Amino acid sequence: MDTDQVSGRWDANKGACPTRQVLSRIGDTWTMLVISTLERHGTMRSGQLKAAIEGITQKMLTQTLRQLERDGVVRRDVVPTVPISVSYTLTPLGQSLGVAVATMRTWAYDHMDEIVAARNDYDDRPTAEE
Amino acid sequence: MDTDQVSGRWDANKGACPTRQVLSRIGDTWTMLVISTLERHGTMRSGQLKAAIEGITQKMLTQTLRQLERDGVVRRDVVPTVPISVSYTLTPLGQSLGVAVATMRTWAYDHMDEIVAARNDYDDRPTAEE
Repeated sequence: MDTDQVSGRWDANKGACPTRQVLSRIGDTWTMLVISTLERHGTMRSGQLKAAIEGITQKMLTQTLRQLERDGVVRRDVVPTVPISVSYTLTPLGQSLGVAVATMRTWAYDHMDEIVAARNDYDDRPTAEE
Repeated sequence: MDTDQVSGRWDANKGACPTRQVLSRIGDTWTMLVISTLERHGTMRSGQLKAAIEGITQKMLTQTLRQLERDGVVRRDVVPTVPISVSYTLTPLGQSLGVAVATMRTWAYDHMDEIVAARNDYDDRPTAEE
């Protein structure tokens, strides 16, 4: 029972498994928003991403893009315009991650009403234990 | 182009959209590990969850379970044993979230080698820009 759904070498339930850090990275909200925004729009410049993702700071966007580039999820291209500009595109690896992120995002959209109803129920309960 | 993949009322790219907070919650690493562990094992007590998820503190586990219960994702049952014990089970809503979380977890397992290779490439590059 302990081994099903665990994929041979990897098990994020183990503290030292490197997939836990990857899970933490890809589950980050800014990361998910950058990935799904690039998936939707294709190649984008940093300023376009910043405009498309309300509330992201330049620092957080730069840091997120750099980590995604390092992980091979995003490709950074220097465009020889004047002045030089830089564009970002999902790699094939990033596109496959985009599918997983879309599943999470779609789940949130599809179940938001149920979550709100559950919260209202919970908050209305007498708190016998407290 | 701005409206595709955006589901009518919800758009996590907007700072005030409540789905952004839900995305942040469900993308949290401890949340994903609790959900996938409950999905794998069915009903579990808090101590069993703590043992199954290396490194989670009691405080973080309790907080994660309480938020998931409030969101309607996890059901908390008081079991009339001596002493009384408490068990946790995914609700149908939680099971549907389990599918999305499994997609993220499986992606991390399936692509760990590619990510490691990409990081090595990145770190070996001359850093012309710095």
